Amino acid sequence: MHYEQIKVELLAFLTPEQVSDNDIIRAQHGQDESYHVPALPDLVVFPRSTQEVSDILKIANTYEVPVIPFGRGSSLEGHIIPYNGGISIDFNEMNAILAIEPENLLVKVQPGVTRSQLNQALKKHGLFFSVDPGADASLGGMAATNASGTTAVRYGVMRDQVRDLEVVLANGDIIHTGNSAAKSSSGLHLNGLFVGSEGILGCITELTLRVYGIPEHEVAGRAVFSSTNIAVQAVTAIKHAGIPIGRVELVDPASIRMVNQYSETDYPEQPTLFLEFHGNEAGLQQDIEFATEILQDFGCSHIQFESDTAARNQLWNARHNLAYAFIHANPGKKLMSTDVCVPINELANAIEFARKELEVSGLIGGLTGHVGDGNFHALIMIDLNHADEVTRAKQYNKKIVEYALSIGGTCTGEHGVGVGKMEYQQQEHGNALAAMKAIKHALDPKNILNPYKLI
Amino acid sequence: MHYEQIKVELLAFLTPEQVSDNDIIRAQHGQDESYHVPALPDLVVFPRSTQEVSDILKIANTYEVPVIPFGRGSSLEGHIIPYNGGISIDFNEMNAILAIEPENLLVKVQPGVTRSQLNQALKKHGLFFSVDPGADASLGGMAATNASGTTAVRYGVMRDQVRDLEVVLANGDIIHTGNSAAKSSSGLHLNGLFVGSEGILGCITELTLRVYGIPEHEVAGRAVFSSTNIAVQAVTAIKHAGIPIGRVELVDPASIRMVNQYSETDYPEQPTLFLEFHGNEAGLQQDIEFATEILQDFGCSHIQFESDTAARNQLWNARHNLAYAFIHANPGKKLMSTDVCVPINELANAIEFARKELEVSGLIGGLTGHVGDGNFHALIMIDLNHADEVTRAKQYNKKIVEYALSIGGTCTGEHGVGVGKMEYQQQEHGNALAAMKAIKHALDPKNILNPYKLI
Repeated sequence: MHYEQIKVELLAFLTPEQVSDNDIIRAQHGQDESYHVPALPDLVVFPRSTQEVSDILKIANTYEVPVIPFGRGSSLEGHIIPYNGGISIDFNEMNAILAIEPENLLVKVQPGVTRSQLNQALKKHGLFFSVDPGADASLGGMAATNASGTTAVRYGVMRDQVRDLEVVLANGDIIHTGNSAAKSSSGLHLNGLFVGSEGILGCITELTLRVYGIPEHEVAGRAVFSSTNIAVQAVTAIKHAGIPIGRVELVDPASIRMVNQYSETDYPEQPTLFLEFHGNEAGLQQDIEFATEILQDFGCSHIQFESDTAARNQLWNARHNLAYAFIHANPGKKLMSTDVCVPINELANAIEFARKELEVSGLIGGLTGHVGDGNFHALIMIDLNHADEVTRAKQYNKKIVEYALSIGGTCTGEHGVGVGKMEYQQQEHGNALAAMKAIKHALDPKNILNPYKLI
Repeated sequence: MHYEQIKVELLAFLTPEQVSDNDIIRAQHGQDESYHVPALPDLVVFPRSTQEVSDILKIANTYEVPVIPFGRGSSLEGHIIPYNGGISIDFNEMNAILAIEPENLLVKVQPGVTRSQLNQALKKHGLFFSVDPGADASLGGMAATNASGTTAVRYGVMRDQVRDLEVVLANGDIIHTGNSAAKSSSGLHLNGLFVGSEGILGCITELTLRVYGIPEHEVAGRAVFSSTNIAVQAVTAIKHAGIPIGRVELVDPASIRMVNQYSETDYPEQPTLFLEFHGNEAGLQQDIEFATEILQDFGCSHIQFESDTAARNQLWNARHNLAYAFIHANPGKKLMSTDVCVPINELANAIEFARKELEVSGLIGGLTGHVGDGNFHALIMIDLNHADEVTRAKQYNKKIVEYALSIGGTCTGEHGVGVGKMEYQQQEHGNALAAMKAIKHALDPKNILNPYKLI
């Protein structure tokens, strides 16, 4: 291939430390945190400016070789694996927080900044960034996959936080997808399109993001139910009553059992809701009284609220330790997670279906859900060397996805498509998939940007 | 042209009442509520189903004639004026509310449903639709322009409410841009792209929209200040304190004067904030106490809060009657409205600039703003037969826009581009405009969909 020549051309404007074909470096950029099979890039580059990214893309476009933007490698569907080789663009040297604007409730950051790095810097301004996908992902990567997590029910997903992106297109053009105003009806809305585009339309080189004032008061709660179905109904009732929920997570008995083993605790091994409410003191008090009434109306057998920070963390312990508990109990196995999102009124049935099918599959796993949004995960531990187990896990995933699609849901609520959910795109999007492909072709006619991903 | 032949082909599947070349009907579809010059469509059609829209578009695509989707004609930038003739597609016969799903906090509607029609139907479920652009627009039109209004500061703009659109593309293909789940990271995000696309990418034939529980309690307020600058600073301080504002509107002295004349009232002719807070009773009480402290810290000279419905309406009277007061006082003149949106920390200066330039221009007008979002309007009364007045108004608009763009704002916060803001698209979007044009060309290669609008 042309990579020797490409390397020479890259070294005309990058330092030797910024261009690597070292095997270890390539291997580090050949896998994410998922069960998907690794593959190596031909080169890894570490740009330090938007202009360098633009120049890299111009070369890649000339030679028609793949480019794969890389943040922290914490994706869960193989998004950053270079199955067709090419140049992995590692954004970790573009990790500056460029501006914090408290008056505008905005920040401007480079794509390599991680969410914990940003929150650390925001704390002294009394501000926080809301999206929490679990992993300490890069903000560029979180925008590329439209990440979300436990706080989406209150603050929205990554797409809701993005005011503007600086993006380098396949031809090296540098564009802005939005602006710093709170709203705009000007031009086509490229912000929404580029968030979640998984690197197939361009490389994100700067983000302008919304941030929020740290809530005056927070209260955490845990409520235990006799059935998953009733727990989900209780959440729906709280939402419908207009009580603003900060977070609400469902954890199933199998997962609580795993946590009890891991943490040597004795939480009741029953369907459990973990809740959080944010607001002013008086309002919170009234919200919690009202929520407690509703939870009790639905036959909640145990209920506890805590407002002190340490007690809150203790209360949420079982939810926080969930993935670790599964990984710890299953050495040598890899975590596979389903990720469907369904209309709220279908959620209880969808979770019940997933629970039954998990039993049928014989796989080790548990269910947890961002139930305020209708998004839930089956966490499954699989041995990648055990072909039958992998096959059963994939079949299980497929059943869950097809069930979700049959009731107006989506194959992925927050992890994205990558390579893992490509097979469901036609089924989910129908004729719209052709429109998506037309847009991809219009913006990247040589198909160099993270090719053969997403669509 | 081919319109005689097109009419024959349309009548193969539409009734004679659904196809019109009557002069009066054409004239009704040749203008919106703006100052832009009218122009006539060749034909007006009134489809009753998505399939009919698809068949209409196939014919238009074959003959390469323009199609212009038409809702209630309440656009403010000439969006629906057929400057190149063609077929105006009037969606008023597709005005069914297809489903109200209280559990999912969703509704499914046809594009001809108006927001007051929807809110009427939602009331008995204890729900409401949040977006209020003033006019009783169709929901299809509101999605096409990404409308917003006074409630955006709390609930977001039209784009934030759209879960799914059914859209007919230029070639007649029927697609869905989303689904009924609360969040999704599947495929490219067409929802965001099609909202605000002003009919240039497709015709919206069905919408799935978020709705909200009617707030338990509402409190309205009015606060009078000695300067606009300080009033805006007070709003920023309330927002930064994390107090959730339901609505917050600024009205300038010239506008209050106009309202006093119109309503025979004696409101102080000073910069005035109109506020609204929503929530539970205890929380609201605490929010209002805190907000009052802040308003007083900023030297607010008069402050009043009301919770009773009639008293609330009375309190907001001056804001509600604003446009009418201007129109009533200036018979024979047309209302032109600027619509920039700027970063919050630039808002006070931008409004001050707009006020000074309004004086310089010698035009009759006043300033009002959705100040929680940084979006404000200069309402200007112009005589369309008075060329010099029109020229001065356009020059004034241009100054306001260029000022907004120079500080990271946008030329239109909520009215959209239509033909009125096209001249600023290159300046605002730079290289991104080429990407927008590429997307338009990919989805509508014959340029039949509302051609020569937006981009």
